[in-house]
Amino acid sequence: MPQTAPADRLAALRAELVRQGLDGFLVPRADEHLGEYVPARADRLRWLTGFSGSAGVAVVLADRAAAFTDGRYVLQLAEQTDPALWERCHITDQPPADWLAQHAAAGARIAYDPLLFSEDSLQRFADKGIALVATDENPIDAVWADQPAAPMAPALPHPLRFAGLDSARKREQVAASLTVEKQDAAVVTDPASIAWLLNIRGDDVPFTPFALGFLLVHADGRCELFMAPEKLPPETRAWIGNAVSVQDRAALPGALARLKGKRVRVDAAGSPAWFAQQLRAAGAEIVSGMDPCILPKARKNEVERQGCRDAHARDAVAVCRFLHWMDTAAGQQTEISAAEQLLAYRRDVELFRGESFPAISGAGPNGAIIHYRVSPETNRAIQPNELYLIDSGAQYSDGTTDITRTVWTGPAAPPDDLRARVTRVLKGHIALATLAFPKGVAGPHIDAFARAALWQVGLDYDHGTGHGVGSYLSVHEGPVSISRAARPIPIESGMILSNEPGFYLPGAYGIRLENLLLAIDADFPGAAKPFLRFETLTWAPFDRCLIDITMLTRAELAWIDAYHTKVEAIVSPHLHGVDRTWLAASCAALG
Amino acid sequence: MPQTAPADRLAALRAELVRQGLDGFLVPRADEHLGEYVPARADRLRWLTGFSGSAGVAVVLADRAAAFTDGRYVLQLAEQTDPALWERCHITDQPPADWLAQHAAAGARIAYDPLLFSEDSLQRFADKGIALVATDENPIDAVWADQPAAPMAPALPHPLRFAGLDSARKREQVAASLTVEKQDAAVVTDPASIAWLLNIRGDDVPFTPFALGFLLVHADGRCELFMAPEKLPPETRAWIGNAVSVQDRAALPGALARLKGKRVRVDAAGSPAWFAQQLRAAGAEIVSGMDPCILPKARKNEVERQGCRDAHARDAVAVCRFLHWMDTAAGQQTEISAAEQLLAYRRDVELFRGESFPAISGAGPNGAIIHYRVSPETNRAIQPNELYLIDSGAQYSDGTTDITRTVWTGPAAPPDDLRARVTRVLKGHIALATLAFPKGVAGPHIDAFARAALWQVGLDYDHGTGHGVGSYLSVHEGPVSISRAARPIPIESGMILSNEPGFYLPGAYGIRLENLLLAIDADFPGAAKPFLRFETLTWAPFDRCLIDITMLTRAELAWIDAYHTKVEAIVSPHLHGVDRTWLAASCAALG
Repeated sequence: MPQTAPADRLAALRAELVRQGLDGFLVPRADEHLGEYVPARADRLRWLTGFSGSAGVAVVLADRAAAFTDGRYVLQLAEQTDPALWERCHITDQPPADWLAQHAAAGARIAYDPLLFSEDSLQRFADKGIALVATDENPIDAVWADQPAAPMAPALPHPLRFAGLDSARKREQVAASLTVEKQDAAVVTDPASIAWLLNIRGDDVPFTPFALGFLLVHADGRCELFMAPEKLPPETRAWIGNAVSVQDRAALPGALARLKGKRVRVDAAGSPAWFAQQLRAAGAEIVSGMDPCILPKARKNEVERQGCRDAHARDAVAVCRFLHWMDTAAGQQTEISAAEQLLAYRRDVELFRGESFPAISGAGPNGAIIHYRVSPETNRAIQPNELYLIDSGAQYSDGTTDITRTVWTGPAAPPDDLRARVTRVLKGHIALATLAFPKGVAGPHIDAFARAALWQVGLDYDHGTGHGVGSYLSVHEGPVSISRAARPIPIESGMILSNEPGFYLPGAYGIRLENLLLAIDADFPGAAKPFLRFETLTWAPFDRCLIDITMLTRAELAWIDAYHTKVEAIVSPHLHGVDRTWLAASCAALG
Repeated sequence: MPQTAPADRLAALRAELVRQGLDGFLVPRADEHLGEYVPARADRLRWLTGFSGSAGVAVVLADRAAAFTDGRYVLQLAEQTDPALWERCHITDQPPADWLAQHAAAGARIAYDPLLFSEDSLQRFADKGIALVATDENPIDAVWADQPAAPMAPALPHPLRFAGLDSARKREQVAASLTVEKQDAAVVTDPASIAWLLNIRGDDVPFTPFALGFLLVHADGRCELFMAPEKLPPETRAWIGNAVSVQDRAALPGALARLKGKRVRVDAAGSPAWFAQQLRAAGAEIVSGMDPCILPKARKNEVERQGCRDAHARDAVAVCRFLHWMDTAAGQQTEISAAEQLLAYRRDVELFRGESFPAISGAGPNGAIIHYRVSPETNRAIQPNELYLIDSGAQYSDGTTDITRTVWTGPAAPPDDLRARVTRVLKGHIALATLAFPKGVAGPHIDAFARAALWQVGLDYDHGTGHGVGSYLSVHEGPVSISRAARPIPIESGMILSNEPGFYLPGAYGIRLENLLLAIDADFPGAAKPFLRFETLTWAPFDRCLIDITMLTRAELAWIDAYHTKVEAIVSPHLHGVDRTWLAASCAALG
């Protein structure tokens, strides 16, 4: 019989810990791929605590327990968890390692599931002198009676007309990159890497179209895929070919053991610690290094680039229809109905496969919550004369989109100070969109261009400026991002990055203006070294009533007018009647 | 009898290596403070090889030897060294560690002087599998018969009206910073740190007014200074007080040995490896960390800030007189005579103490050599209708200056493409000068602002944008610099940084426009977090005939006009007659 009450679940876990001879246990919000979205089976944190946010960890001792999350979710954590059971902590103000150092008895056996933590994340405990014990079997799985089954969606071929390069060629390239480093094999635990390498897509988790699995790639080009064979229909089995062996997940430990004496690349930041532990125990030599698919996946090939342009042009039709619809939303619609309307328009778009993340639909003060996710409890009516922010995206077979627009609901004119702030955000957006830069420049070096106009008056936004985006894959794709905190990995031709400066006044409103950018070679005749620039992929008007053109340089004004001209040229042929008239008015020259 | 021929010197060194049982030896261009300028006694690389550049290393084996330097000096290395004795290598294309890995026999005893290498620099050899042997006695000193004596210039008080904070208070603050980190003591090997901490200045090396010595600072506030007592006249001995013990350099090993069992901070990047080696052998616990004086020295106090403003205002008079003089230089003067003329004007300035570095005086193609140092052999006549670049600076008792101006020698108008490039460099200069930014931002995050206008057309410059500057101390002061390659150490209020974008067309000309900037708190009423901005310290007109105002935004044009207005207000009262008329014309509004 399932334990339904949170207190019963916690008690059951504690009993299991006693049975396993453990004094404590860490429960992260993670699956064994350390992915952004986890299948229901892996949502142990939610089952145990009730907390449904996308980041957090619980720490359970015999006599006390705490749940930790970051600034985005502290209110939600407080609402969803029982204070009689859980101390609720801000994960940066009071990290779990500090809490354990304070509350765990000396010599206590505190356990973790090595499939749910990277080696780098465990290091944070070691740095505080906390010695953790790896479990062989997750104690929650032992007591979670109605734990959902692992997802079994079929993995399907991602055809060459979208993938652009066949899997055999990709595997050759990856194998060659191992040979150069004198490595015999690499562990691939990110299902997005597998999806890219084998040109397959799946449906095991929401929003990101991959099939969960693991893979070993060998320097001789052989691949071993660990995925339930029933997820691979004959069509897919034929598609991936004989150079890729398929084994069940249960065969993974044996395959790792066979790497004895080999040099094996493992990603200490991106892969569960279990892999390095198994390999070390088997007598393999571990070389720490990035998953060898990450960089080639990020560099989109010509077919993927064109697919992404095409997907964005079609997505723009849905977004423009929605923005017109929004003109009459005030007093009529809610955050939920607006997000549903945009989704409805997108369902009309060719090759639509689903949303690329849960839309952020925030009116008035809800727009200031950077990672807001509307729920029936928070759903707010869209009111006249306020800002409405919508950050959304879609998965198409040929590409992934992500766009944010901020509109004024009217009918009065927006206040001047609001227009000034929106215009500063727009100036930052343009500064990044128009930048050219030499090869070698990385995200941390250019993040400030998107902020300088805000900084000039003492304003800023507390999030990065941009993240990588996949090609009909994850909307948050590594390794490059535009942020001061990012690793300085150079931007390369073919990478897709978001450009999303904002400004948030808590309790009042949020502004964010986001397009996706494609990094491409810049052709400067006679240049002494190679340069890159950005091609804008996203096409939808910026709300003209929020732009103060007196604050713009001639170059900025010219950029907006040229952008709007192109929006109209791309989208107008696919609109009808009043939608088309609206778009023409929205894209008329500002200058 | 001194060995005068390079071949004799090399032979003598090899004989000494045999005597010491060594198979090879590394000779860096370094003294035991790892400083930028070394006393003649420590210029072993020059004595051995003839090479006089400011960066390089020689590697001597029994049967072959190589000398290495970077791109700035490869031509000079080739000219100054005998190819029969030395292979000449580019230090990044063929690092010494690679050369040794290729040419040294397995098991060879390759030695280095641990006073001349940091632990971090030795790591580069260890990473290549090269095991090095530390020498107790430098073999060159054993065979350099006429090696100059160590410099013995007196260390003199740096009065409070320039230093702003007494040494006792500084020592308290540094001691407190050790206590916070639970460290018992720190090793200070940078003479600039000692000069700052004890409020003394000296004259042991050119250009940087410090006295060579070492110091141990204890968490209880005591300091042990290791410096020849005869360098400290009674006035200075009284000035530094009884809390600072003075011992001869020879007492240093014993003092380190007394730190047995203590936690001692040593700077692995900035201090010779000898210190950590001695401390480890003595049984001290080494904690790697930055010299505890570096950050407080970089944050200039209010008196130092005002001193720097005053020094720059006076320096500007000399620079403006010189720039006027340059109007008639073409066809009359040379690079050397121009640099001498500027120095002559500076000698007239109150509190002038010397140049802060060797002036870079480059006409035409010599301006494209980024670290050009004119010599009688390279001295070039300043010709009509070319660019002339002069990068120079002075030491004053109240501050250190560093300025670069690029002028057109006329009489014809400069070509449009040249004006466009100068204007792009100027746009970069203005972008950095006018930036405001939140606390936490570091040099690598803002370097690109100075480059974006060049990048826009595929141009760039191959040096950092800015370096820290001391207060009557080193013109190149850590720890902050404005460069993508710099460590991301946040800029703080009171730091002085150069702003020196440029553009160089090899064989044709060089452009560089440099002012110094003081980082100060930006007062934005109601700002959610603290911000900084830059105050410009340097006052001299930019050559107006090189500026294309059609390429400037309104804000950029307003900045230049306001800057020139202020130049005239500050400098004009100290000029006479035609100099004053020239300045008024040079500073008239461009718009």
